[in-house]
Amino acid sequence: MLNENLIGVPGGRWKLQTPALVIDIEALERNIAVMAAHAERRRVALRPHAKTHKSAEIARRQISAGALGICCAKLGEAEALAAAGIDSILLTSPVVTEAGIARLLALNAKIGALAAVCDDEAIAAHLDAAAARSGKTLSVVVDIDPGMGRTGIRPDRAPPLVERIASSPNLRFAGLQCYAGQVQHMESPNERRDASLSALKELAGLRDLLKAKGQDVPMLSGGGTGTFDIDPDAAVLSELQVGSYVFMDRQYNDVWTKPGSRPPFETALFVQTTVISANRSGLVTTDAGLKAFATDDGVPVIAHGAPAGASYFFFGDEQGGVIYSEEHGKLKRGDAIACVVPHCDPTVNLYDIYHVVRGDTLEAIWPVDGRGRSA
Amino acid sequence: MLNENLIGVPGGRWKLQTPALVIDIEALERNIAVMAAHAERRRVALRPHAKTHKSAEIARRQISAGALGICCAKLGEAEALAAAGIDSILLTSPVVTEAGIARLLALNAKIGALAAVCDDEAIAAHLDAAAARSGKTLSVVVDIDPGMGRTGIRPDRAPPLVERIASSPNLRFAGLQCYAGQVQHMESPNERRDASLSALKELAGLRDLLKAKGQDVPMLSGGGTGTFDIDPDAAVLSELQVGSYVFMDRQYNDVWTKPGSRPPFETALFVQTTVISANRSGLVTTDAGLKAFATDDGVPVIAHGAPAGASYFFFGDEQGGVIYSEEHGKLKRGDAIACVVPHCDPTVNLYDIYHVVRGDTLEAIWPVDGRGRSA
Repeated sequence: MLNENLIGVPGGRWKLQTPALVIDIEALERNIAVMAAHAERRRVALRPHAKTHKSAEIARRQISAGALGICCAKLGEAEALAAAGIDSILLTSPVVTEAGIARLLALNAKIGALAAVCDDEAIAAHLDAAAARSGKTLSVVVDIDPGMGRTGIRPDRAPPLVERIASSPNLRFAGLQCYAGQVQHMESPNERRDASLSALKELAGLRDLLKAKGQDVPMLSGGGTGTFDIDPDAAVLSELQVGSYVFMDRQYNDVWTKPGSRPPFETALFVQTTVISANRSGLVTTDAGLKAFATDDGVPVIAHGAPAGASYFFFGDEQGGVIYSEEHGKLKRGDAIACVVPHCDPTVNLYDIYHVVRGDTLEAIWPVDGRGRSA
Repeated sequence: MLNENLIGVPGGRWKLQTPALVIDIEALERNIAVMAAHAERRRVALRPHAKTHKSAEIARRQISAGALGICCAKLGEAEALAAAGIDSILLTSPVVTEAGIARLLALNAKIGALAAVCDDEAIAAHLDAAAARSGKTLSVVVDIDPGMGRTGIRPDRAPPLVERIASSPNLRFAGLQCYAGQVQHMESPNERRDASLSALKELAGLRDLLKAKGQDVPMLSGGGTGTFDIDPDAAVLSELQVGSYVFMDRQYNDVWTKPGSRPPFETALFVQTTVISANRSGLVTTDAGLKAFATDDGVPVIAHGAPAGASYFFFGDEQGGVIYSEEHGKLKRGDAIACVVPHCDPTVNLYDIYHVVRGDTLEAIWPVDGRGRSA
């Protein structure tokens, strides 16, 4: 495997063949510990979202630190992580096709604790029939739309769906999911707080209504890295679906960097790239372009390896560019540069392997088990 | 393999588990034939760029139609396509590190015709030394910078580098590469024409200078889908590195769609997605988001499966949204939608397999051999 020969070699981190996805293992470990301590202090469970890392190794570390399982976004991702040994998964997107439901029930037969979300009564009927054929009850969580209209059902329309699921002989009503994706990246802390607590207030209303009808609601799952410290105040969610905190990225660093304070989590993920052309003054070309970073939100931020003030830009599908002032040093062919990624989840999805580094040493290579498993 | 059970099933194309990358095989075949006929008519060779498709199967079809080999952007891509049987490759990005040069020479030992580009004398010396150690001559093409400053050396500074390579005992000077990437997507045909011919005029000057010194220039490689019909007028390039024409995408459709005329190539590549949530009026959610499309240039264009006037937007990492008017029909869960991708190359790089369809039938599944091989 590429770069395997560098494991344990002093300074090997800076000799990686690139573009390479790099994890700073010490920062990752601290991020997992900080979130675990937060959850314990605030008496909320963690079910970290594996759509960020798609890695069984990282999922195991999160579970070892106290998480009660993980979330997966897609069936293929859940299948990959289950095959790698993860036994407790909440699948957070609805599965609605015949072929998808067949795969869902096959996965349900294989692992200890699977729960699927549902936002429609007709689909609930399909799930019930498929579970009957499979001979094993399926746990179903009702997906609540917190107002963004992506997936889920609005709280006022949810009770009949809950009742439909709870009364289905082959389904178990496992609870409610409410993920306010639109709130996570609001940069104003007050707006973020108000928006998240307002969505959770609706969820609390639904929970109370169901309880008044005698319907137990075992799980209330939601929240993210943008609201991890806000949501426990609402005392509604039983578990947090935090994902990006393990790695952080430029987006979440922007959300969390405030005057006079540091983000609660460290940047643990980098894309490392190498200078391949240097025939201009104050400009070099690297080997990481549009295929090496997700590009939905801006450009990479240079963290190591370039003179102060250098900036990165996309220079086509295959290359990046670095503009810098030669007063602060000169870049040359072969130089390694590490970048904070604009958006971690879709960037991870571009790579087959993580290069796990401790300081300047490459310590291990981990597979990105769920890479590309969007179907 | 996902969807393998649908091969040959009538209407199976619309039952694919998604997101799925789809090739319209008839459009692909016509695109390959149209470009081959153009090249024959204009007496220029083709060396199509495989960075677009990363597929040995498509490379073989291009070569069967007359191409003299392919281009690859990265060593890993070239290694993957060579392993799948492609024997003639021009590697279009400079390889500059010790580990990379070792891999380059290992690949050179394995396949019939490999050429590497170089834009620096010190690197040329490294290539020469490595070729000496490998015991096989390496063909080297001097990369010329057409003014965009990405890779390559400016024509006026190129002669000493050409001489350095031509006089190296273990290198063979194979010619010049000049790819004007900045020109390809200019939407004004006149500006595109002027810019491309101006870059090629510089290249012709360099060629004439080298010839006057007695230096033969066997290969002059460059051009792209945006200038395929312009560049032959300059009578400089011996071969065209066209890539995107096999698939087309929204970007190149914009370049080529003019009032009163159709693009010379057809859209042959689609991402197919499925409606997974439909609880709002005039809005549904699909299963293809930021992990299913490259997002560097706008949003997907719906080609099939949604009411007239519907538009697609990115609804987060895992989902897309379709906004439409219910006057023209109603979308429901499970509906399949095919989209033209904004930018083909980095979108292909997200997928492990192509679903090859003829009309409504899934005919084959091809691997994306070079997927993710950016290092």
